[in-house]
Amino acid sequence: MNAYQELEKLNERASALGNAMGILGWDEATTMREGSAAGRAQMMGHLSVLAHEFATDPRRGDLIEEAEGMNELGDWERANVREMKHHYLHATAVPADLIEKMVHARSDAGMTWRSARGANDFAALAPKLEKLFDLTREYAAAKASALGKQPYDALLDTYDPGRTTQQVDAIFGDLEEFLPPLIDEVIAHQAAGPEIIEPTGPFPAENQKALGEAIMKLIGFPFERGFLDVSHHPFSGGADRDVRITTRYEENDFTASLMAVVHETGHALYQDGLPLKWRQQPVGDHRGMTLHESQSLLLEMQAARTDEFIRHISPLVKETLKGEGPAWNADNLIRLYRRVKRGLIRVYADEVTYPLHVILRYRLEKAILNKDIPVKDLPGEWNKMMVNLVGIEPPDDKDGVMQDVHWPEGIFGYFPTYSLGAVTAAQLFKAATDKDPSVVPSLGEGNFKPLFAWLDENVRGRACLLTPDELIEQATGKPLGTDDFKAHLKRRYLGT
Amino acid sequence: MNAYQELEKLNERASALGNAMGILGWDEATTMREGSAAGRAQMMGHLSVLAHEFATDPRRGDLIEEAEGMNELGDWERANVREMKHHYLHATAVPADLIEKMVHARSDAGMTWRSARGANDFAALAPKLEKLFDLTREYAAAKASALGKQPYDALLDTYDPGRTTQQVDAIFGDLEEFLPPLIDEVIAHQAAGPEIIEPTGPFPAENQKALGEAIMKLIGFPFERGFLDVSHHPFSGGADRDVRITTRYEENDFTASLMAVVHETGHALYQDGLPLKWRQQPVGDHRGMTLHESQSLLLEMQAARTDEFIRHISPLVKETLKGEGPAWNADNLIRLYRRVKRGLIRVYADEVTYPLHVILRYRLEKAILNKDIPVKDLPGEWNKMMVNLVGIEPPDDKDGVMQDVHWPEGIFGYFPTYSLGAVTAAQLFKAATDKDPSVVPSLGEGNFKPLFAWLDENVRGRACLLTPDELIEQATGKPLGTDDFKAHLKRRYLGT
Repeated sequence: MNAYQELEKLNERASALGNAMGILGWDEATTMREGSAAGRAQMMGHLSVLAHEFATDPRRGDLIEEAEGMNELGDWERANVREMKHHYLHATAVPADLIEKMVHARSDAGMTWRSARGANDFAALAPKLEKLFDLTREYAAAKASALGKQPYDALLDTYDPGRTTQQVDAIFGDLEEFLPPLIDEVIAHQAAGPEIIEPTGPFPAENQKALGEAIMKLIGFPFERGFLDVSHHPFSGGADRDVRITTRYEENDFTASLMAVVHETGHALYQDGLPLKWRQQPVGDHRGMTLHESQSLLLEMQAARTDEFIRHISPLVKETLKGEGPAWNADNLIRLYRRVKRGLIRVYADEVTYPLHVILRYRLEKAILNKDIPVKDLPGEWNKMMVNLVGIEPPDDKDGVMQDVHWPEGIFGYFPTYSLGAVTAAQLFKAATDKDPSVVPSLGEGNFKPLFAWLDENVRGRACLLTPDELIEQATGKPLGTDDFKAHLKRRYLGT
Repeated sequence: MNAYQELEKLNERASALGNAMGILGWDEATTMREGSAAGRAQMMGHLSVLAHEFATDPRRGDLIEEAEGMNELGDWERANVREMKHHYLHATAVPADLIEKMVHARSDAGMTWRSARGANDFAALAPKLEKLFDLTREYAAAKASALGKQPYDALLDTYDPGRTTQQVDAIFGDLEEFLPPLIDEVIAHQAAGPEIIEPTGPFPAENQKALGEAIMKLIGFPFERGFLDVSHHPFSGGADRDVRITTRYEENDFTASLMAVVHETGHALYQDGLPLKWRQQPVGDHRGMTLHESQSLLLEMQAARTDEFIRHISPLVKETLKGEGPAWNADNLIRLYRRVKRGLIRVYADEVTYPLHVILRYRLEKAILNKDIPVKDLPGEWNKMMVNLVGIEPPDDKDGVMQDVHWPEGIFGYFPTYSLGAVTAAQLFKAATDKDPSVVPSLGEGNFKPLFAWLDENVRGRACLLTPDELIEQATGKPLGTDDFKAHLKRRYLGT
């Protein structure tokens, strides 16, 4: 067994542990009872330390060095070694005891968040966040020093390899200028158009679930190895060949849940479409969170909100939710699904206002990590920025600073990938439709095959063969930029 | 850190992995979709090899030897070392590659069983069983040689430490003589008594679930860290401080599901009542499967089938299942719950005929392992023995040889513990009621506290401080025997 082959063996074991933790994480969010949280945190702490030991095994470091000198490796194998090195550098940058402390602090804050959010009690959450922020500063500093990057860039690199604050600032700066006047214009445009008729509920969760599953089936979700469940915050998880997504149901509004289902289906199909041959190797993994989010948003925003697709599913939506009257006409549903509104909640935001929610979080989390803002001032700063960016003031912290699970779970440097993903999705969808003009008309028949054929070739099937920026550039013929996203918004929302 | 302390650290990590596998196993039986089975088998294979490496780590062997010589250890610590040695001997007896082969073969046969059973297709299952039996012979031989025991005794020792074929033969030989004439007598006695009125269904699963949960609550199931779910075969699983039980619902018969719920609650409360301080150590584990089964049967058969308890829950049963008429009177429900009938299915058998189902399996699995019976003859042999022992012939293999998950999951030497557990339960319950005469009257008020106080002191709280036989003898004042069980059956079913 040569060095490369030995690395593959090590990766198989690490992959099994990662898959196990995927199922356990899913269980924790959907199924486990609250009284089991402390024991689970302890269990996950041990498993994380174990995974960390696998990832930082000095033998692995030696083998990677050796494999880097092997000239007989093919493209995928070489890319595999590059990815292993990336992971090894990240993993060895952070001491095991810090990892373990973070696992406990995350679980603790995450659990507190679940109850504190409902009680609108930021004071209960604050000390847990304080502790997590401190640990995250240590974590970012350790990575920064090992990778020769700025601390926030080191966090970005964890989720979206190679991404820099400089790139994000350029893209977000552009959107911060472009979006606010566009929003004014779109809201005026929509106000001048036909009035949107609200379908009136209640829509029982079981009907919404049936609709979600019907749409998943139509899109091609592999129910033979996956399913839909419920959690506080929708997510796509599980393990290799065991793709599980969640949503949540609000009885008076079916649209949020339905589009969450489409969104998570996009994530799941990306994960499920990665090349089988490389599944247990780092090169066979998804290509970072910007690309992952591009796959959910490509489905949710680009494909599923086309006239063609909404017209196709309208009768199904009406029938499954037992709707009656003009609210259920395709034209009204199209308007409903494209309504632009200043809102409090990121996950319910439309695609025009959404990036501003992300830009707020991006600015705030950089400020937190720089200690420019103390934790106690977070709610106030949040509300001030909401007014400045989105133009609306949160009445409480529940729907303000406490709405997201990310910070209580110690996830920093991740928020930007949502909007980078939106920008990427627009650029990929444009490239796909340029290449194959049947993509959009096929959606009108509920046929995702042409779109998925392009995605299989250019995104899913490539896994980590290329870097994220290389993948985007090879798939679309140009580097990541905001042009296609801006053109998409103007076309869809102003018809220009 | 001395040798003993180092062992405790190793045990904590192994315990975390074991707990993780508990949740994953629960997920596999209740939640995972069939198309994920191959990937899951691969994952579990890796985790099992890892657990096996933990268990067989030569460092562990050295430390155990060192710890055995430490005079400063207390009773619990010394018992902990004894248990560690027991596990180490068992684990090192079997080579890692055989363990891995068995994990795959078990998962493969288990999955095939799920579909083959429904299709009554023993031929589809046979080659998978054949493979498992071969591997189990290897496994038993390896253990036998390492432990200096007979192969089947080595299997018994895995599930019920110290148990021998000689003891089992004595107890089962006694029951095999005692039960058939008793069954004739009881059936005649019941036929001469008031006719049992069948409550007529259907009983929708959701009502049965509500009833099951109400009874669990009454008994004291810790819903804050556990819950009830559905699987093909009821079981109690999950992890430390995360106790999960399952049942299955038949719409025309609520009694089977309800008593399965009580049974699994008994298992869960035993597990949940083990001393908190020792949870991550071998000495803090349950005291083998005979004791475990004694705890489920003590609840299901001894406590929950008393006149007192059935009278107490009758109104709840009637109300939750929306029953009407004389079938729902307490007297009729008592008769219903105590009906003795020759039946095909072990898990639905009453407590009088049940041991004969187990004796059949005990005899057959010893014959299989001795190669006295080829796999293809199993269905025929099964049916012949059913006629001889239980007095009824299975019309098909679905409700014959394929009814249990155990053999397809490679579990041998386990079946005897069901009836040894029943015998133990009778002996423990007798001791508890002798010691505290308020035990049974309290059940009539839905109050399990007196019973559980005795169990906490004599069984749950002792975990593995003693050997199984020592525990039974200290709790009841005599070695395990059939007297209390036989007296219980005669008293309950013949009133003598």
